Amino acid sequence: MSHAISPLAPKLVPEMPDIPGMRIATGSAGIKYQGRTDVLLALFDEGTTVAGVLTRSKCPSAPVEWCRAKLKGGKARALVVNSGNANAFTGKTGRAATAFTAKLAAQASGCKPADVFLASTGVIGEPLPAERFDGVMQALAANAAPGGFLAAAKAIMTTDTFPKVATARAKLGHTAVAINGIAKGSGMIAPDMATMLSFVFTDAPIAAPALQAILSETVVDTFNAVTVDGDTSTSDTLLVFATGAAANAPKITRASDPRLKAFRTAFVQVLANLSEQIARDGEGARKLVEIIVEGATSKKSARRIAMSIANSPLVKTAIAGEDANWGRVVMAVGKAGEPADRDRLSIWFGKTRVAHRGARDPDYDEAAVSSYMKNPEITLKVALGLGKGRDRVLTCDLTKEYIAINGDYRS
Amino acid sequence: MSHAISPLAPKLVPEMPDIPGMRIATGSAGIKYQGRTDVLLALFDEGTTVAGVLTRSKCPSAPVEWCRAKLKGGKARALVVNSGNANAFTGKTGRAATAFTAKLAAQASGCKPADVFLASTGVIGEPLPAERFDGVMQALAANAAPGGFLAAAKAIMTTDTFPKVATARAKLGHTAVAINGIAKGSGMIAPDMATMLSFVFTDAPIAAPALQAILSETVVDTFNAVTVDGDTSTSDTLLVFATGAAANAPKITRASDPRLKAFRTAFVQVLANLSEQIARDGEGARKLVEIIVEGATSKKSARRIAMSIANSPLVKTAIAGEDANWGRVVMAVGKAGEPADRDRLSIWFGKTRVAHRGARDPDYDEAAVSSYMKNPEITLKVALGLGKGRDRVLTCDLTKEYIAINGDYRS
Repeated sequence: MSHAISPLAPKLVPEMPDIPGMRIATGSAGIKYQGRTDVLLALFDEGTTVAGVLTRSKCPSAPVEWCRAKLKGGKARALVVNSGNANAFTGKTGRAATAFTAKLAAQASGCKPADVFLASTGVIGEPLPAERFDGVMQALAANAAPGGFLAAAKAIMTTDTFPKVATARAKLGHTAVAINGIAKGSGMIAPDMATMLSFVFTDAPIAAPALQAILSETVVDTFNAVTVDGDTSTSDTLLVFATGAAANAPKITRASDPRLKAFRTAFVQVLANLSEQIARDGEGARKLVEIIVEGATSKKSARRIAMSIANSPLVKTAIAGEDANWGRVVMAVGKAGEPADRDRLSIWFGKTRVAHRGARDPDYDEAAVSSYMKNPEITLKVALGLGKGRDRVLTCDLTKEYIAINGDYRS
Repeated sequence: MSHAISPLAPKLVPEMPDIPGMRIATGSAGIKYQGRTDVLLALFDEGTTVAGVLTRSKCPSAPVEWCRAKLKGGKARALVVNSGNANAFTGKTGRAATAFTAKLAAQASGCKPADVFLASTGVIGEPLPAERFDGVMQALAANAAPGGFLAAAKAIMTTDTFPKVATARAKLGHTAVAINGIAKGSGMIAPDMATMLSFVFTDAPIAAPALQAILSETVVDTFNAVTVDGDTSTSDTLLVFATGAAANAPKITRASDPRLKAFRTAFVQVLANLSEQIARDGEGARKLVEIIVEGATSKKSARRIAMSIANSPLVKTAIAGEDANWGRVVMAVGKAGEPADRDRLSIWFGKTRVAHRGARDPDYDEAAVSSYMKNPEITLKVALGLGKGRDRVLTCDLTKEYIAINGDYRS
């Protein structure tokens, strides 16, 4: 499980500010490996609201079902995340493990189990030994302290090669608020809630329905626009916690409140940053690939075509081989099942138009494109020439390393 | 492009009988490589009928568009297939190349261009130098002779590691008729007409509409039930030619004719055999994988779930790693978007039930499964417990060799 850090990892880790109204602790419960940090406890002050989006998998994990039920309340006092075991496809045992974990966390932190949110990541189908949280949870609650976001990001890693954090500040009314996010995920990444786990924290006082609305609109072009391998996890979870502890900030109850403008911008920035880091840490990734589709009949159609390209093994392997194989891009456009007219199609790698109106661009400079393909970040643009639909997704290349990582995961 | 023969290749190549009413020649036109057999000409006697299914890609190749138009006539006198260049995404040049090739073949064989069928396979986006067929076509027509099916199968190979042929005999009325098929394809293979190229020949006298009906019903569970990488080609073409030269055989005009029973069985056998060979020659394949889904709400739903499993990179890499990672099967069932109830789901690898009713089967013998996973042929069964929908698809594993082949194809 110890792979070299992705060459696409951000060069700088940002300074993460404290978020008033919350504390963090990480520890080791020996869920899968002994002596490895594998559990995160975040505690929130009373009044913290929560919103979330969860996997659309028809076979969701037990913690996903737990969160889906508890999100209705809109209130949160604690978050428990473990790595090493996904508590997915674990039947009754899995449900019992979530209830037991929530009970332990509630006792340790003095809240109700219904105010505890849970997420698990790791192997599917093995019972989660939740009894190992006993004792550990009390110690974590006792040690929880402000800050600790980078440690939290590290505690939830599985095949990730670097911890993923992002932060932004915004004015809410006249008050500065902060938004911190952490994420993990590098395989089994696909749209329909496109990360395995991500948690975002803010001290802005935003009511749960408004927070949910902002979150739901923001994931469309951030987390849901990222794919590594087209495989949707059973455990995808993105939760946002708003402690409301920012002194003097106006209390926001509606998503349409104009005072949210700066907050929204900052929130999009944090989610876009985290989701891009997931593509950057795609299993075996050596190239970050941005796919832009324009001129489609609608944004939805542009998204489907972009995803067809982004998930095509032949496109992804060509990029891994630094080959501007636009024939495979044509293939991926053609198979998407969306309106497309071959004879209006143009394709660019970087700034070079390689194909124009259904044929190879006679003027294109193959040497320039070959040189461009050696970059670690590749932009591939398709213009359909049909309408105004536009979309952008991020993915990574498909390398032998992906096979090595995934051909030998459980052992 | 010279890769070792797939370890899954059939051990025996069948003896291919002559098909009365047709002749074959293969030759070298230097389309991409000099001195390599890259063109096939088949000539059919007057009265030959034709049926076909073609790629559903929105960006089809020029020969696919040519065939789609000419199939309406239901008559065929010649088939020209070249490898080395797909004549796809070649704009007006591509259309001109198909017209020119058909004209050459028509002149050489004494028929109309509209009775010539065309298929091309190879690189996308490069203009097809059809002028190189000039002279070659006349020589091929002069040399065309009965038999030659294995040579024909070899002439249309690209990244294939072995030629794909199949044959069967059946009684039509009291007359024995033969069905010979050839196919090529190992990458860019996905449903919606699942091979790049396949051609089937018979001496049975079957009218074009009846032949089309039999073909359309047969591809559903043969070619369209095979996937290598989920990538649908721009060039997928399956054509069936019926010369009608079988002496004394009854002339069949309707697909519902009861005298077709034995022919149908033999026809399914040939198509199933060829399509299985395509999965066996999947790029980099080391395992042939049969996926059975039962208990779905419908056959269509079972097909979608089976394809979700068959196209999952995580399932395919696990099988390459000989890991019975049924957690990834759960994931693939969950992401298919079809009705599924986690707590009724059971999964088998071979004869071992590894998961039962939404959790690991407590009785399963991991050693037995591990040993089973070392086989070159793996059967994976999912029972959903919801209805009577059942389906079966074939695929192969995803290995580093696939990446090696596709990361370096054009160069």
